[in-house]
Amino acid sequence: MQLIEGKKIAEKYLENLKQEIKQMSQKPCLAVILVGDDEASKIYVKNKNKKAQLLGMKSVVINFPETVSEKELLNKIEELNKDNSVSAILVQLPLPKHIDTNKIINAIDIKKDVDGFKPENTGRIAQNDEPFSYPCTPLGIIKLFEEYKIELEGKNVVVIGRSNIVGKPLSLMLMNKNATVTLTHSKTLNLKEITSNADILICATGNPKMVKRDWVKQNAVVIDVGIRKNTDNKLSGDVDFEDVKDKCSFITPVPGGVGPMTIAMLMHNTVQLHKRFK
Amino acid sequence: MQLIEGKKIAEKYLENLKQEIKQMSQKPCLAVILVGDDEASKIYVKNKNKKAQLLGMKSVVINFPETVSEKELLNKIEELNKDNSVSAILVQLPLPKHIDTNKIINAIDIKKDVDGFKPENTGRIAQNDEPFSYPCTPLGIIKLFEEYKIELEGKNVVVIGRSNIVGKPLSLMLMNKNATVTLTHSKTLNLKEITSNADILICATGNPKMVKRDWVKQNAVVIDVGIRKNTDNKLSGDVDFEDVKDKCSFITPVPGGVGPMTIAMLMHNTVQLHKRFK
Repeated sequence: MQLIEGKKIAEKYLENLKQEIKQMSQKPCLAVILVGDDEASKIYVKNKNKKAQLLGMKSVVINFPETVSEKELLNKIEELNKDNSVSAILVQLPLPKHIDTNKIINAIDIKKDVDGFKPENTGRIAQNDEPFSYPCTPLGIIKLFEEYKIELEGKNVVVIGRSNIVGKPLSLMLMNKNATVTLTHSKTLNLKEITSNADILICATGNPKMVKRDWVKQNAVVIDVGIRKNTDNKLSGDVDFEDVKDKCSFITPVPGGVGPMTIAMLMHNTVQLHKRFK
Repeated sequence: MQLIEGKKIAEKYLENLKQEIKQMSQKPCLAVILVGDDEASKIYVKNKNKKAQLLGMKSVVINFPETVSEKELLNKIEELNKDNSVSAILVQLPLPKHIDTNKIINAIDIKKDVDGFKPENTGRIAQNDEPFSYPCTPLGIIKLFEEYKIELEGKNVVVIGRSNIVGKPLSLMLMNKNATVTLTHSKTLNLKEITSNADILICATGNPKMVKRDWVKQNAVVIDVGIRKNTDNKLSGDVDFEDVKDKCSFITPVPGGVGPMTIAMLMHNTVQLHKRFK
């Protein structure tokens, strides 16, 4: 079993970005919109902000109260779209229930859609065409496969979880790499039977330790996107790591696997958009 | 075994559309762009045109020679986009090699993208949001499942063929219906093993009679999108119908299965765009 050291790979990416940014006369600028007081969201935004500044980018966080109107958010996005000093716009999700998330995401100029969440970006991926940005978590996972020279062509890949942010775009990206992809979800009836045939298993559900030893094929590659605090306050992924690990050819740890790659790809995307559209 | 009579269902849809159009003071108008002299394309366009007129719609076919420039096509699309008398624009594919198909499709106003091929439409489907139009063949297949009350939720669906027109959007639509979807293609290694576990098997490759009896699970639903002329000049699908039929719970014939639904859904989409944006 070989551990996929996302943290180490991510640091390599970040170091390269830092050197690249050092050479730039005009620095990339990431604008983050944060609505409300959700503790997890605040931590995510703080980390993204801190990382951007460490790399020598500009980073702006715009806070709105939970009660903000859709109109106010749309106005702010419109302002950021027009602002030439802003390279990339990120709206931290989830948004409060009275806000139409799709409408907000759709309002971002595609040239600044750093999360790659706009339908046109997803559609371009579906059509095996280049999007303006790839969504960060799926892109980070693809980079991990590249780093560890894990072949995708002809492989049976099973993805658990069909979110718009991870499961669906990732499945489409894997299809473009000639993998045979099965996308499973909460309505899948024979999940264990399906996962136990997977050459590569990718879990993105947020159900701690749901994937057990008998769910995994011998020598499978296992990628764990989930990250949740257990009752004992320790972080754990969707995969029961200790139970599964010695059955795998490769496995990502939680923490230190996919998570660091997501934030590295966010920085990567910001720099890419800045270089392409400035 | 029950035959899925696409032709009969399509006629029902067309009759309803005809009645609906009769009530309209301003009739829907479908504009079709045809480039070059490909015999199959000419027949397809002629059939679409004839069907539109039979239903009481307006239909315009704009012919360009094989040598047309990208610029000329883009100018024509721009003109049709602005023309208030045009409800829907269809560019007959394939286009000649010197033309960038994506660029042409992207130029169509999404409010007139009757084929639903624009990336934003595909992306909206991927995100389980409403597109402006669903692509015609996948939509026709979903309607057949509805007509025959074939349940999709929790079913293992295998799609063979990952085209942007059929396989990929259809897979996404089936995921939205809570099916567990495996999308297979020319690089899939163990195709027969995968198809023989499918509750529902959908073939869209254009390889005549590739699907044999031992590829199909007992009581599977089999949908055949392929249609090719054999050496003996008879039409046949991707499925070896005679070999497979008595193993299926439902099966589409070729011809008379999916094909008529595609053209009915094109008419349906034209009417929908006309009603929504006029």
